[in-house]
Amino acid sequence: MLEAVKVGMLGLGTVGSGTVNILSRNADEIARRAGRGIKISIASVRDIKKQRACDTSGFTLTVDHNKVIADPNVKIVLELIGGTGIARELVLKAIDNGKHIITANKALIALHGNEIFQRAQEKGVTVAFESAVAGGIPIIKAIREGLAGNSIQWLAGIINGTCNFILTEMRDKGRDFDDVLKEAQQLGYAEADPTFDIEGIDAAHKLTILASIAFGVPLQFEKIYTEGITEITSADVAYASELGYRIKSLGIAKRTANGLELRVHPTLIPHRRLIANVDGVMNAVLVKADALGPSLYYGAGAGAEPTGSAVVADLVDVVRALTSDPENRVPHLAFQPDALSNIPILSMDDVSTVYYLRIHVQDRSGVLADVTNIFANHNISIEAIIQKEPQTNIASVPIIILTHEVVEQNMNKAIAEIEKLEAVTNKIMRIRLETLT
Amino acid sequence: MLEAVKVGMLGLGTVGSGTVNILSRNADEIARRAGRGIKISIASVRDIKKQRACDTSGFTLTVDHNKVIADPNVKIVLELIGGTGIARELVLKAIDNGKHIITANKALIALHGNEIFQRAQEKGVTVAFESAVAGGIPIIKAIREGLAGNSIQWLAGIINGTCNFILTEMRDKGRDFDDVLKEAQQLGYAEADPTFDIEGIDAAHKLTILASIAFGVPLQFEKIYTEGITEITSADVAYASELGYRIKSLGIAKRTANGLELRVHPTLIPHRRLIANVDGVMNAVLVKADALGPSLYYGAGAGAEPTGSAVVADLVDVVRALTSDPENRVPHLAFQPDALSNIPILSMDDVSTVYYLRIHVQDRSGVLADVTNIFANHNISIEAIIQKEPQTNIASVPIIILTHEVVEQNMNKAIAEIEKLEAVTNKIMRIRLETLT
Repeated sequence: MLEAVKVGMLGLGTVGSGTVNILSRNADEIARRAGRGIKISIASVRDIKKQRACDTSGFTLTVDHNKVIADPNVKIVLELIGGTGIARELVLKAIDNGKHIITANKALIALHGNEIFQRAQEKGVTVAFESAVAGGIPIIKAIREGLAGNSIQWLAGIINGTCNFILTEMRDKGRDFDDVLKEAQQLGYAEADPTFDIEGIDAAHKLTILASIAFGVPLQFEKIYTEGITEITSADVAYASELGYRIKSLGIAKRTANGLELRVHPTLIPHRRLIANVDGVMNAVLVKADALGPSLYYGAGAGAEPTGSAVVADLVDVVRALTSDPENRVPHLAFQPDALSNIPILSMDDVSTVYYLRIHVQDRSGVLADVTNIFANHNISIEAIIQKEPQTNIASVPIIILTHEVVEQNMNKAIAEIEKLEAVTNKIMRIRLETLT
Repeated sequence: MLEAVKVGMLGLGTVGSGTVNILSRNADEIARRAGRGIKISIASVRDIKKQRACDTSGFTLTVDHNKVIADPNVKIVLELIGGTGIARELVLKAIDNGKHIITANKALIALHGNEIFQRAQEKGVTVAFESAVAGGIPIIKAIREGLAGNSIQWLAGIINGTCNFILTEMRDKGRDFDDVLKEAQQLGYAEADPTFDIEGIDAAHKLTILASIAFGVPLQFEKIYTEGITEITSADVAYASELGYRIKSLGIAKRTANGLELRVHPTLIPHRRLIANVDGVMNAVLVKADALGPSLYYGAGAGAEPTGSAVVADLVDVVRALTSDPENRVPHLAFQPDALSNIPILSMDDVSTVYYLRIHVQDRSGVLADVTNIFANHNISIEAIIQKEPQTNIASVPIIILTHEVVEQNMNKAIAEIEKLEAVTNKIMRIRLETLT
């Protein structure tokens, strides 16, 4: 395998630490996907002595950002400082030095992306920013590549987790805005100064980026209409609910005959829409495209590792391009062909799940005890039983059972024994259950 | 701009026609994204005289598949014949001829992908198959690239629209399996011989592919446990609902300490999960990854243009790699930098939406008439009004109004006038409403 690609980091806060932890924990899988290792070699921070949420022993720590972007061994620079001041300067300088850039900085891209991309174009480097919108959801990739055949009609996104958490709590518990905001701050979902989130500015940064890649227009943050959620009361949430709607803060970009609508504001949406059921701090983007129709992308929009997930995806993207022949950038099966593993595939006998069972029995005493005894003999415990009333003219009654988790082969044995009971009139119906958590 | 890339098609049925229609309708946007045009130059069909659902005047029609794969001008071959017989032979021959391959053929990839990818590797060409799993949802791209930093723990997908349609109808309307199957066949959602769908084989093909790209293991269709939905009764659906669950046919791939679980079967899932609310013919894949956590990808899993959307995305992918320098394969803003447009961004005044309004008025007769007259004067029509009971000790009562769609500037004028009414006690609260259809 080729030598690992060396990466320099500007900033080592929450997202930076998440990125370092992912690169370290999943080093093997990442190298098998990318075709070579990815190694952080240097990181610049404000305070070298500060405790970090990651192991920094594998790389140089410096207080000098310029050392990172000037390092001749560094091929890729991660900008995780945030803001549009020094971050902009450093990114432009790093590009001038021929470094590829990966950034999670939505404000930087929304406000200075046109300038940055032009510079990158001139210098022949990539600026990747998947982590700047909707955290770990690969929404930039989905729109920019996955929907490349479509004319996109509109998109609507829950792209600020703080607002979504607040509105979800207001609905679920009838709480007031101020009260929930305080809790969000305590939980770390909202900043001490929450203006950027609750006034819709953070969402407007992200919408600027989404609109550009959807419609092929320059980044135009200044033209976005932005309205926060601060005036929504718990009464509004309740009235909306009564009318069959939920209130979500949406970023909306829509193509019309006269031009583009770009707007961030609280929005009533019908409660049965999938996106209306995206709750808490989760993000989702719904895209309506002419060929595909509606598609939705859902996941964590913030946090150390979810955002780090998108940073590392960008890293793998850049490294694959640096490594493989261009026409075979991404391996067919995600991992390099010589790096597939032989993990055994389990027999169904060895799979554990919860079971739903429908058993039809003659309506007489003692049957339920016979059934539950058989379960007990096979160490199968029962979560719930519903015994239905016998229906007229039908000799048998259904018993519905939910078990706890049990290995399939034990369940098979128990079912075989129960089916032999004289009082059991039909083949037992069984359906597996997954909680998907 | 460079000359258009020439594409040959094997087969011109539903998906083929959808692909041709997308390439023609969106030719301009696609070229702006890919950096050059994409042109179908030849297509092979069984019957040249058959009516097609697309305009075939722009390219050569032939009954000789070999003519397509031997054509020296053709750089990319779309395999849309289906099945694993002649499709396999033609794909291998086309690879030998140095053509890149794009296929929507899940059976071909699931059963012969290992062989095909190896051959492609040897010949230095790409085999792209986004359209083989979950139709137009870019799930291959999401997992293979978007989640490249993660160790994937499990995935669970609604990856057969026929099964999902049947189970949705059974739940929504209490109908029986056989009855709904017949309707699905009439609607074109199920084949005359529905075995592949309702017995889970189609889903198992797709799961084979998803499991490989998630876990980095070879394609192993033969090891998937597969169980259809034919034995589910409407009673089961109702009992599950009573217990708080919905029944979905899921393809599940899970990493455990002992090996991988790969299984397709009807599954109870808690009704509040987002994926439990994916209804009708729609598909969705839920992926649990160690860094990102859960993420979900939802959209149309079948149909001419949704599947064509993924075929064209693969085309753009391959063409971008053939066109741009490898390190700048995907333009930063999706469209080539010299191909951005100047679509105007509308002022908020010109945006039309439905409005939710909360108006507080003194509880006396005639006020509602005053309010509705002002709306009428501004051509704003009303969808619903809720007038709340006055609360003790509170002088005003809230009136909740949903309007029909209205231009913002008209609404602004109406609101200003209403706020001037003596009986209106507070600033009017207004929240926009979007149906998102």
